[in-house]
Amino acid sequence: MGRWEPNSRGRLQEAALALYAERGFDQTTVAEIAARAGVTERTFFRHFADKREVLFGGSAVLKERIVTGVTDAPASARPLDALAQGLDAAAAMLGEGRRDLSRLRQTVIAANPELRERELAKLADYAAAVSAALRQRGVGEPQATLVADAGMTVLRISLEQWSSGKDDRELVDVARDTMANLRVVTADR
Amino acid sequence: MGRWEPNSRGRLQEAALALYAERGFDQTTVAEIAARAGVTERTFFRHFADKREVLFGGSAVLKERIVTGVTDAPASARPLDALAQGLDAAAAMLGEGRRDLSRLRQTVIAANPELRERELAKLADYAAAVSAALRQRGVGEPQATLVADAGMTVLRISLEQWSSGKDDRELVDVARDTMANLRVVTADR
Repeated sequence: MGRWEPNSRGRLQEAALALYAERGFDQTTVAEIAARAGVTERTFFRHFADKREVLFGGSAVLKERIVTGVTDAPASARPLDALAQGLDAAAAMLGEGRRDLSRLRQTVIAANPELRERELAKLADYAAAVSAALRQRGVGEPQATLVADAGMTVLRISLEQWSSGKDDRELVDVARDTMANLRVVTADR
Repeated sequence: MGRWEPNSRGRLQEAALALYAERGFDQTTVAEIAARAGVTERTFFRHFADKREVLFGGSAVLKERIVTGVTDAPASARPLDALAQGLDAAAAMLGEGRRDLSRLRQTVIAANPELRERELAKLADYAAAVSAALRQRGVGEPQATLVADAGMTVLRISLEQWSSGKDDRELVDVARDTMANLRVVTADR
C-alpha cells in the first residue's frame, strides 16, 4: 500500500477510461478502477477527487494556457489571430496526451448526457475566459464573444478529428487547418 | 376548477418566471405557481409537464423553424447566407414573445448552473440540426459545424441583447446586426 507505485496516475486514467468505455461511466466504481490499475482506492483518491475528475481534471491549466496565448499575442494581432495563438497553446498541451486515451474519453462523454452537458459547460467556461481576454485587448462586443465561441468550436472539432484515428497529423496542425476553414467559410460570400 | 380560464397558459408562464426570479427555480413549487396565476395545479399540468418546461417548452418548434429556414434558402445561397435565413426564422418566432418575459427567463437561467447546462445542451442540439441541414445542402465538414455553431452563438447573443432592455430594436434586426458582426470579425485579417 505504502510502496512506490510507478506512474499510478497514468495507470488509473487508462483503467478508468477503459472501464467507462466498456461498462458505462455510471456503472463503474472507484474500487473497480483501482483494482484494474493494480493500486488501492486510497491511491485513486490521492490523484482524483472523484470518477468525473479523471475526465475533466487539468481543465483549469488548459484554460489558463488558452487565455495566456490570447493575451500574449502581439498588440497588432487581429482578434482571430490572437485566438489562433490561444488555440495553438491549447493544442500543444492536449497534443502531448495519448491519442488513444483522448479517443476513449470522447467516446465515454458522447455516450452519457450528463457528461456531455458537463463538457459543453467546460467549453462555455473557456469561451467566457477567452472573450474576457479579447475584451482586455480592446475587442468590443459582440465580436469578442463571437470569436471566443467560434474558437471553442474549432478546438472541439479538432480534438474529435485528431482522436478519431482517421487523421495522422499532430493536433496543432489539425487545429490550424480547422481555423483556416473557419476563415474561409465565414469569408465566403 | 372546470370553468373557463382565459389565457391560463400565459398567466402561468408569467407567474412561474416571476417566482423563479424572486425565489430561485429550485425553491419554487408548482402549487405556488398555480396559486399566483389564480388557477389549479391541475391546470398547470394541462399546459406543462413540469417546472422546467415553462422555461424550455417550444424548443422543438423553434428548432424546426431554424432548420426549415436553412433548408429553404435558395440553392445558390452560401453557408452563411443559409444560416442567416434560419436565424431570421428563429428571430421572427422568438420576437413575437414578450421581451420582459424573455428577460426574466434569461435571468433565471443565468442564476442556476443546471438550467445553464440545459440551455447550452439545447443550443448544441439546434446546432447539430443546423449542421445536418447544411450538409444536406452539400456543405462539407468542418464547415457545416463551424457555421452552425457560430449561428447558435449569434442567436444567444442576440436574445441576450434584445431582452437586456438596452436595445429597442426588434429581435430580427438585432440578430441581423450580430450576423453582420460575425462576418466582419472573421473577415478581418
